Amino acid sequence: MKIVIIGGVAAGPKVAARIERLCEDIDITIVERGEFLSYAGCGLPYYISGVVKEQKELMSTPVGTVRDSVFFQNVKNIKVLNHTEATAINKIEKTVTVKQPNGSEHILPYDKLIFATGAEAVCPPIPGRELENIFTLKTVNDAEHIKKILAKNKATDTVIVGGGLIGVEVAEAFVEMGCRVTIVELLPGILSMMDKEMSQLVENYFESKGVKVLTNTKVIEFEGSSSVKKVITDKGEITATLVVMAIGVRPNTKLAKEIGLKIGSTSAIAVDKGMQTSEKDIFAVGDCAEKNNILTAKPCYVPLGSTANKEGRVAANTICGIKDEFPGVLGSAICKVFDYSVGRTGLSESEARKHGYDVVTCLSPSPDKAHFLPSAKLLFLKLIADKKTRKLLGAQAVGPGSADKRIDVAVTALSAGMTVDQLANIDLSYAPPYSPAMDNIITAANIIRNKIDGLMEGITPTEVYAMKQKNIDFTFLDVRSPSEIEERSLQSTVNIPLGLLRKRLNELDKNKPIVVFCKISLRGYEAALILKKAGFSDVKVMDGGILMWPFEN
Amino acid sequence: MKIVIIGGVAAGPKVAARIERLCEDIDITIVERGEFLSYAGCGLPYYISGVVKEQKELMSTPVGTVRDSVFFQNVKNIKVLNHTEATAINKIEKTVTVKQPNGSEHILPYDKLIFATGAEAVCPPIPGRELENIFTLKTVNDAEHIKKILAKNKATDTVIVGGGLIGVEVAEAFVEMGCRVTIVELLPGILSMMDKEMSQLVENYFESKGVKVLTNTKVIEFEGSSSVKKVITDKGEITATLVVMAIGVRPNTKLAKEIGLKIGSTSAIAVDKGMQTSEKDIFAVGDCAEKNNILTAKPCYVPLGSTANKEGRVAANTICGIKDEFPGVLGSAICKVFDYSVGRTGLSESEARKHGYDVVTCLSPSPDKAHFLPSAKLLFLKLIADKKTRKLLGAQAVGPGSADKRIDVAVTALSAGMTVDQLANIDLSYAPPYSPAMDNIITAANIIRNKIDGLMEGITPTEVYAMKQKNIDFTFLDVRSPSEIEERSLQSTVNIPLGLLRKRLNELDKNKPIVVFCKISLRGYEAALILKKAGFSDVKVMDGGILMWPFEN
Repeated sequence: MKIVIIGGVAAGPKVAARIERLCEDIDITIVERGEFLSYAGCGLPYYISGVVKEQKELMSTPVGTVRDSVFFQNVKNIKVLNHTEATAINKIEKTVTVKQPNGSEHILPYDKLIFATGAEAVCPPIPGRELENIFTLKTVNDAEHIKKILAKNKATDTVIVGGGLIGVEVAEAFVEMGCRVTIVELLPGILSMMDKEMSQLVENYFESKGVKVLTNTKVIEFEGSSSVKKVITDKGEITATLVVMAIGVRPNTKLAKEIGLKIGSTSAIAVDKGMQTSEKDIFAVGDCAEKNNILTAKPCYVPLGSTANKEGRVAANTICGIKDEFPGVLGSAICKVFDYSVGRTGLSESEARKHGYDVVTCLSPSPDKAHFLPSAKLLFLKLIADKKTRKLLGAQAVGPGSADKRIDVAVTALSAGMTVDQLANIDLSYAPPYSPAMDNIITAANIIRNKIDGLMEGITPTEVYAMKQKNIDFTFLDVRSPSEIEERSLQSTVNIPLGLLRKRLNELDKNKPIVVFCKISLRGYEAALILKKAGFSDVKVMDGGILMWPFEN
Repeated sequence: MKIVIIGGVAAGPKVAARIERLCEDIDITIVERGEFLSYAGCGLPYYISGVVKEQKELMSTPVGTVRDSVFFQNVKNIKVLNHTEATAINKIEKTVTVKQPNGSEHILPYDKLIFATGAEAVCPPIPGRELENIFTLKTVNDAEHIKKILAKNKATDTVIVGGGLIGVEVAEAFVEMGCRVTIVELLPGILSMMDKEMSQLVENYFESKGVKVLTNTKVIEFEGSSSVKKVITDKGEITATLVVMAIGVRPNTKLAKEIGLKIGSTSAIAVDKGMQTSEKDIFAVGDCAEKNNILTAKPCYVPLGSTANKEGRVAANTICGIKDEFPGVLGSAICKVFDYSVGRTGLSESEARKHGYDVVTCLSPSPDKAHFLPSAKLLFLKLIADKKTRKLLGAQAVGPGSADKRIDVAVTALSAGMTVDQLANIDLSYAPPYSPAMDNIITAANIIRNKIDGLMEGITPTEVYAMKQKNIDFTFLDVRSPSEIEERSLQSTVNIPLGLLRKRLNELDKNKPIVVFCKISLRGYEAALILKKAGFSDVKVMDGGILMWPFEN
């Protein structure tokens, strides 16, 4: 059996290796346009910052062997043609025409053909786009170009267009390299995978690291003579001698379209659960293939190396006659931003509302370990659930605390369709250096349960802020201690420490709405219950307390 | 409604606080024998080592308020009688007799009674047990005594009797304080919650930190004049001027037995899923209550602060008429040992075999992050699954890598009854600073799938070691590169790097059994497939490769 795989970066080599392991008498050829094989594109920001010292580390096995053509031939028994482009496919004859570096063309017959053509960086035709020193970051060569510029010029003025995952990772790398950094984002917030109240925490943190974040801002033009000198936006101009366009990626589907493969609504190649395209014997995997969102059962496009590897395994199994299905994705994503982690999975609050769920959310800021240990770090956690079925819909986490653990627990719970009630009682491993006795995600699930059960009415900081902007008359009750209030307080609050609240109820107006909070709003919740027992009817707890208030005080 | 709670350390205050939040017109009294309330017993080793600086940090809220009687009264509206012992209960009259510090007795009527009496350290009647400087570590006072001795004597000779969770945590604390430490364990390995091949890695690590670990060793006697000087074991004697007995804990059930509450097979108080005992209106929570093992549906006794808190919430809900059930535990546990984490959940391999499962396991050592990042650390992971249903049964993790994340993903998967096939395809969050593109637990699940599907036959290092001891004739094939072999190699191996194997097959005897390995046994797996294709029939891959070989080379 002859297998031809177009694309040798991530999913392609995975399919090849797995097929070679599973089948006898197999002849596998990988056709790769570029020079490099099996490299970690997601490691490029760390190569720019120097955390990864050498290019070859990105394309080596864990024991340090570079995955080049010789490696593939000797170790994996797979033929690789790099610097080689697939130019045409004949579905009837089952052949792929390839063009080699010297210009010669060859025809490769196949029994099974795999598209692993990946994605390319989106680069809109902004005037001045052709100036030097404006890059995308998708290939090893992109990274080399950028590294060269940074090596020559200390304290470069840089602009990153687009505040998505790649954009924020590059921003960190540039700061580490001593650059001045501005992120320009068209949308109201960076990291649009997060709800605004969560991404706002990241923006504030970026600002504290000296990174300028300009949201709701559109790039109009790049100015310069030969190389870029200025980025002109609809809000003003920014000096910049290095620009990275990090707007996103789109699937490489030119060849697929030419042979009439079905393209999905997301512009990626449509595939079934065995990774087969609309054409028998043709498969697609990785960043060129469309994904299925498990929660919405709708197509989506989330290109990630983790998914590419899983899809590669499923395609190989299907081809070799082992029944296997790729169930789809949850939209899980995570990135490091200096000492913060920023992660999410499932539906965001806004996505969940768009899909018609009766949404309940909570914001829960807590130390990620037993609070009495100096190693404990703060983690801001948001859960999204469905009031009707009580099922978890999504999770978001931001902060210096261990976000990835809570996100991955949420991923597993979402995959199993767990309710918040089930989640709240799972036997997560506990010792003080790893979590509070009630893990952050369990506490958050319990807050959601309290809200669904009507024990607590929440209001988000954003909603409170809007009330203040509209001059709505309400009592803004802070039940923290005087020393905490001295450290940081919000405007126009009434301050009564929780321990004195029962004795000082007469100071509060029963006919006014009350919004109560503390540091994280646990005492706020207790205060609300005291107030309700005392006959106050309109009492809301501000989600996440002062710790999750993202605005000016 | 009058509520009396016996026990004020962990579960008791949780029940009290939740009931106070849920119900109107409630009168709650906590009766606590000791001085301290709501303190983190699991933090005591960190107080001994000085990581936690002050006693009061263990009994404070996250904002630093000490949880004393005044706190409970003012903030929580809960009456606390500390230094007060419950001496008798009248089930008919529904009263509790309590004895106060001044000797006076009072009778407290109750509508609902909650046992949160906790557990006490097991302390067998070993001769010499009454000598000074022999302690258990269960209370704040125990810790204070130990701290005093360590403050006086630098480089104390210490012996810890029992290598369970508390034992290993205390061992680390003692090393941090400059002591010489010996752990004496009766069983064949420390941390019996782990399978031996995993706990052996911890023993080796302890030895590398200068801690002597004596397994299969029984303490016969303590010798000394007024204070202990020597620990006499069946294997010899050990100098020791400080001894901690860390053999385990048993539930405090004296009062419960006196009033005829049903005691379970584990010697803890039997409860239903709403935490009610055999007696209506009497509940039990926390370390005095028996647990249900979700996987075996059998009673078990795993006393942990995390479980105590969850049970407290369920008991309060039941009492206040909110339907709730505590599903039980998975036996999840974790501890820190210097820079290693050691965690487990579900059934161990030996437990799974005991319960009659057709067990499949894997050992998978991998970096816990993208291997090209310097922050990547090694994690040794073991999964246990059922061949018939393909369901995950348990997970164990050891090493400097992030064990808690993988264990908690396994916890969630076990709670949902996931198969290894489902686990292998979940959309765990991926970026290089958080995991390899294929997370460690996904790789491990895929190894299990390969084994169940007959693609790979594994053999554990322990089994290979036994073959060598018995002088069984087999080819022990190391397919690593010459430079790796130079670094560390095992005895009596044949060395052929994977890339040369296809060309050098004639060097191997087809009629001899072959055991093949590499660093982690991925190349070993590929080598086995090459050998099988070439007609070698008896080929096994050594699980975990040389990295998980726990014996002398």
